Amino acid sequence: MKALEELVGLLTRLPGIGRKSALRVAWHLLKADSAYADALAEGITGLRDRVRLCPICGSYTDEEDCGICGSNLRDRSLICVVEQPQDVLTIEASHEFRGLYHVLGGVISPLDGVGPEDLRLSSLIARVREGGIAEVVIATNPTVEGDTTALYVKRALEPSGIQVSRLATGMPVGGDLEYADRHTLARSFRGRVKM
Amino acid sequence: MKALEELVGLLTRLPGIGRKSALRVAWHLLKADSAYADALAEGITGLRDRVRLCPICGSYTDEEDCGICGSNLRDRSLICVVEQPQDVLTIEASHEFRGLYHVLGGVISPLDGVGPEDLRLSSLIARVREGGIAEVVIATNPTVEGDTTALYVKRALEPSGIQVSRLATGMPVGGDLEYADRHTLARSFRGRVKM
Repeated sequence: MKALEELVGLLTRLPGIGRKSALRVAWHLLKADSAYADALAEGITGLRDRVRLCPICGSYTDEEDCGICGSNLRDRSLICVVEQPQDVLTIEASHEFRGLYHVLGGVISPLDGVGPEDLRLSSLIARVREGGIAEVVIATNPTVEGDTTALYVKRALEPSGIQVSRLATGMPVGGDLEYADRHTLARSFRGRVKM
Repeated sequence: MKALEELVGLLTRLPGIGRKSALRVAWHLLKADSAYADALAEGITGLRDRVRLCPICGSYTDEEDCGICGSNLRDRSLICVVEQPQDVLTIEASHEFRGLYHVLGGVISPLDGVGPEDLRLSSLIARVREGGIAEVVIATNPTVEGDTTALYVKRALEPSGIQVSRLATGMPVGGDLEYADRHTLARSFRGRVKM
């Protein structure tokens, strides 16, 4: 069946979805009410139109600014530096960090041709220079690239004399922030070490 | 973010997709090219419009008939009885069965209020009465409901004097046809036992 095979082919390009999972999803869609299928299709096309990057911190938002950067309820003396926009939501779900964020947009990875100039580093330095920041918490993943990037960010911030810390290990080394459970994440925030 | 949460909420209603998987899919869609997102959305809405049930065997098809019921390349003296339309594709993938199919559309399950009258049984009996059928292979799942249904189908076909067989166990008891690997399935076809 061409219609089915086409959809299964598209679904298997999604992360974590193999052929059997894709088939199950397709069977489910064939039986589900059409309002649901329409809503799902609209959610997929609408996501990109409605979600953009916050011009300040670089995380995802569906409003003018990200709601964290402009908030007076946050600790505006703390900036947490993360690799990807989705890391902000992962950390927010842990309810452990009440400061601001800065998304680098990646990690230094010479093998992939990603250097420091490809990251959102100058805007981070500018935010720190503006003043009012007491500490920068680096929450890049505990991988080789994440550690390298953390060290680079720390050195880039050294002239400002600001305190730079790094999330405590506690998360499994080589792992990904996205898969840490919230308790492990919370403990890592509490046990963060000065760099 | 409302746009994201809406899509995640819709995605978690799909089988086998939890919140973390749904979030990964959403992040992927945010980064993927928009042509892909559009194609996926269209595939989801288009599936139901393009796929229908074959009026003879009751399996899914995107053409006038299912391509198996009308084919002269199949052994037209064999009918394999399955629970769901997707079971036909699972069995086809094993390349072990070259006969025709008949989809019951479910199993007898008093607790769920499903009785024999809710299944596509009379059309099966009519197909057998038309003649030319030598054997009916019952391939309902090896569960309590599947076994009960198999016994019921066998008894309903008894007046026709036709040979009725059941897929050999070999698949794990309590399992689901959809998850059997093709070799286990193939062995079950070869070792099918007379009822």
